[in-house]
Amino acid sequence: MSNEVTAERHRIAEVRITPIAFRDLPLLNTVGVHEPLALRAVVEVVTDSGLVGLGESYGDAGHLDRLRVAAQAITGIDVWHTHALAAAVHGALAADRGTGGHGMSGMVTGSSTVDRVMSPFEVACLDIRGKSIGRPVADLLGGALRDRVDYSAYLFYKWAGHPGAADDAWGAALDPAQIVAQAQRMIDAYGFTAIKLKGGVFRPEAEVEAVLALRDAFPDHPLRIDPNGAWTAATAIRVGAGLDGVIEYLEDPTTGIDAMAQVAREVSMPLATNMCVVAFDQVKPAVAQDAVQVVLSDHHFWGGLERSRSLAAICDTFGLGLSMHSNSHLGISLAAMTHLAAATPNLTYACDTHWPWKDPADDVIVPGALAFSGGSVAVPTAPGLGVELDRDALARLHEQYLSGGIRERDDTGYMRRFEPGFDPSAPRW
Amino acid sequence: MSNEVTAERHRIAEVRITPIAFRDLPLLNTVGVHEPLALRAVVEVVTDSGLVGLGESYGDAGHLDRLRVAAQAITGIDVWHTHALAAAVHGALAADRGTGGHGMSGMVTGSSTVDRVMSPFEVACLDIRGKSIGRPVADLLGGALRDRVDYSAYLFYKWAGHPGAADDAWGAALDPAQIVAQAQRMIDAYGFTAIKLKGGVFRPEAEVEAVLALRDAFPDHPLRIDPNGAWTAATAIRVGAGLDGVIEYLEDPTTGIDAMAQVAREVSMPLATNMCVVAFDQVKPAVAQDAVQVVLSDHHFWGGLERSRSLAAICDTFGLGLSMHSNSHLGISLAAMTHLAAATPNLTYACDTHWPWKDPADDVIVPGALAFSGGSVAVPTAPGLGVELDRDALARLHEQYLSGGIRERDDTGYMRRFEPGFDPSAPRW
Repeated sequence: MSNEVTAERHRIAEVRITPIAFRDLPLLNTVGVHEPLALRAVVEVVTDSGLVGLGESYGDAGHLDRLRVAAQAITGIDVWHTHALAAAVHGALAADRGTGGHGMSGMVTGSSTVDRVMSPFEVACLDIRGKSIGRPVADLLGGALRDRVDYSAYLFYKWAGHPGAADDAWGAALDPAQIVAQAQRMIDAYGFTAIKLKGGVFRPEAEVEAVLALRDAFPDHPLRIDPNGAWTAATAIRVGAGLDGVIEYLEDPTTGIDAMAQVAREVSMPLATNMCVVAFDQVKPAVAQDAVQVVLSDHHFWGGLERSRSLAAICDTFGLGLSMHSNSHLGISLAAMTHLAAATPNLTYACDTHWPWKDPADDVIVPGALAFSGGSVAVPTAPGLGVELDRDALARLHEQYLSGGIRERDDTGYMRRFEPGFDPSAPRW
Repeated sequence: MSNEVTAERHRIAEVRITPIAFRDLPLLNTVGVHEPLALRAVVEVVTDSGLVGLGESYGDAGHLDRLRVAAQAITGIDVWHTHALAAAVHGALAADRGTGGHGMSGMVTGSSTVDRVMSPFEVACLDIRGKSIGRPVADLLGGALRDRVDYSAYLFYKWAGHPGAADDAWGAALDPAQIVAQAQRMIDAYGFTAIKLKGGVFRPEAEVEAVLALRDAFPDHPLRIDPNGAWTAATAIRVGAGLDGVIEYLEDPTTGIDAMAQVAREVSMPLATNMCVVAFDQVKPAVAQDAVQVVLSDHHFWGGLERSRSLAAICDTFGLGLSMHSNSHLGISLAAMTHLAAATPNLTYACDTHWPWKDPADDVIVPGALAFSGGSVAVPTAPGLGVELDRDALARLHEQYLSGGIRERDDTGYMRRFEPGFDPSAPRW
């Protein structure tokens, strides 16, 4: 056949997993407060052909253990064979009955362990595929539909600084005026055109007041609030009535599919979730009850970029909206999120990102590949993810991991050091 | 970046669409009988880099018109950009309010026009992608999970030959004994390990008798019957009771999601469909009613191989089984079906194929790439689809199209030439 090209196989020969820690700020949420260091794992997949692909995932000890077990099982797999990769990870974890270790601090408990573990390897394989054929990852997901991907200003109530340390550059945000100031500063710096407030920290009335203050200050920015399931259904319905016409969606106002369905029947705005629909086996019951109208996808727990593409097709087929969730992350994840969002036709909301909260000096990629402008990030056009590992930076953040002493994200434990009686139970109001 | 490769863009520069006709036998179905010639369209997509990709689709005049309109709109698109391809086809057909022209003779009326038209172009683009990187199409769909794909023996009631012509090699099949003989002959020749009977031709009792005769003759072969919606719900429930424990699924016993749901509640076996769920917008209502338990995918009307992969993910997520539908087709389609099936984890049934019914001399591909053994076809390992166009054969079958005079599949019209009062209405029994 005249068109034939001899393929290089690009089989997985080696996997390197490096836990790292990067500086984080005292961001408040319903289960506690962010610790001074956030954990991630940087995954490098090396092929027998010498190509290296990158992935980024959670850095909690239990998850690291699983990543290492899976890494042993995927040697020899062709980087194009996603099904074989999934089967190998599934097989490697077949005896794993553990829970937790997911790096989401008790707020996302029902995601699939196999999908969480598979994700960074799948992303790294896509990075390699792209590099091997000279194409950006977006091309491997059906092609970018937009040159830039919009992100939202992700506001947090926060302390002025970590206890015992000096105030950080962002300062305190504990009331509506301070939240508006935080939004203004973040929008000035990044150009975001949508705003999300992480709630579940104060009484719902106080958080509604903050949202209404944001509405006054930013009349044209779509708004969202996410209390991480801290409210009862009755409270959520009451808040929903108060925010009628004010927010584009109400994210996880309460916990569980049944309660979300109850709220959905009574409020005017769509309900969004990254808590009650976080794995494929939760989609059918949620659809059956019309419990959620927007799913916040997250390739880190939905099994990678290709399975996130399947999730997008499911949302499209069942009339569900699609947005994107974020945990604290570095540049490899931001690149992957940007490629995925760019190649997802029905991702019509600005994606979440914690990006502004990390210290710009703390990353593992060579600077310059990713930059915010007008609230959006340009889709990298270089082959693969389009980001390159900075080995010195990786070594430095790994050293920070080793010396930092944190091995599991524990927002609640950290909070209790300062408020011993803190109770993270939901619903709280 | 050291791993970087300069990509060739492979943009669509030219599209050739060639209608062809191939000899077919007088196979009976509920809307009539197959005409002496079956129509297809062979699509060649040529890139600016000189690569050629192949697709195969329906050959009816209305569909050909739409393929030609779409072909004008897709020039310049990168073969990796499926989303752009879909958008271009959608745009090209935006003013198209026509129906029909789908080559399925009235039996599949609700499929998406855009998806039908897009499919052969998408397959051709996948063929080019594979050729450009030296990999089989299955690798572009997550990788083959099996080396061979199982097909089923697709039995038809049939006349001994076309009226006015000599008996064909298969002879008549009008009663249970002749159906069993047909099955035996087909299994001897191809090794099929599953059997499907096209029904809706005779009274249900006669067709049940044929299925029971097949069960006696082939005790270990999974069996299916497909009357193409010819029965009322009450009849379907009665037939279902009679075939309890005998068939692996009951395919389209009645017409429409409501009636299928009614039957599904009353029969023991799964209901399968390629009639009431033939487009993405029909999935949600079918799931809501639990109307079907198995979807017969068909990349020719589900928008190509990648969208069929999405359908597979939907079926997996909603607990639906997955099988594969076939119309009369040639080798390009068989190659595409085989790559897709090999790379679909949850395609657990033997696929349908009309392959045994066409004259072995009538095809458009160079012989040897595809062969049945033990009821299965080996997944091609050559780059792309792994089949090569035989230009002499294409010219011959195009000449047969030109001289044959048939421009629309019309099983009913052909039947009425011999049975003027024939009424194709459903339900009939």
